[in-house]
Amino acid sequence: MVKLIALYRKPTDPEDFEKHYFGVHIPLVKKYPDLRKVEVTRVTGAPIGEAKFHLMAEMYFDSKDAMDAALASAEGKAVTRDILSFAADVITVFHGEVA
Amino acid sequence: MVKLIALYRKPTDPEDFEKHYFGVHIPLVKKYPDLRKVEVTRVTGAPIGEAKFHLMAEMYFDSKDAMDAALASAEGKAVTRDILSFAADVITVFHGEVA
Repeated sequence: MVKLIALYRKPTDPEDFEKHYFGVHIPLVKKYPDLRKVEVTRVTGAPIGEAKFHLMAEMYFDSKDAMDAALASAEGKAVTRDILSFAADVITVFHGEVA
Repeated sequence: MVKLIALYRKPTDPEDFEKHYFGVHIPLVKKYPDLRKVEVTRVTGAPIGEAKFHLMAEMYFDSKDAMDAALASAEGKAVTRDILSFAADVITVFHGEVA
C-alpha cells in the first residue's frame, strides 16, 4: 500500500477551518478514484513541548500508479483546488510506502 | 483509537539510520505495553517539491490513558532512550485521536 499524507499546521481559526475541512474538503477527498481508505487524525498534543500540527489525513491507494492517477484525475484536481482555497498556508503533503 | 506519530526528517546517513531503526528501534517499540498496531511508512516524495521527511511511524493504542501508560513504562523509557541515542536531531513526535 502507498499513502498520501497531508499534515496541517494550526490554522488561525480552527472552528472555520474544521467546518470547511469536514464539510467540504473530506467529501471531495472521498471521490479520489481507487481510494482505499482515508484516516483523519486530530492532533491532541505532544509528549514533549507543543504539537505544531492540527490535523493529519492519510489517503491509502494500492500502488504509486493508482495514487498518481487519482491526483491527476478531475476529482484529484478538485481536491487540490479546494486545498488552495482554504489551507495553502498550513499544509505539507508527502507520500510513502507502508513498510 | 489514539496514535503516537513519529516523523523523522532525512538523516545524514540513511543506511546507518535504517539499520538502527529497523534492527534495534522497532523491536523496542513493539514492546510498548498494550500497543495495538505499528505502521511504518517510508517517505517516497511529495506531489510538489521535495519531501523533507524520511520515515513516519504510527503507534496505535486503545486510549490516551493506554498511550500515556506505555510511554511511562520501563519499555517506553527504553524507546525514548534509544531515540535520544540515534534520532534526537531528526525526530518530531505528536499524538492524536483517529477521527
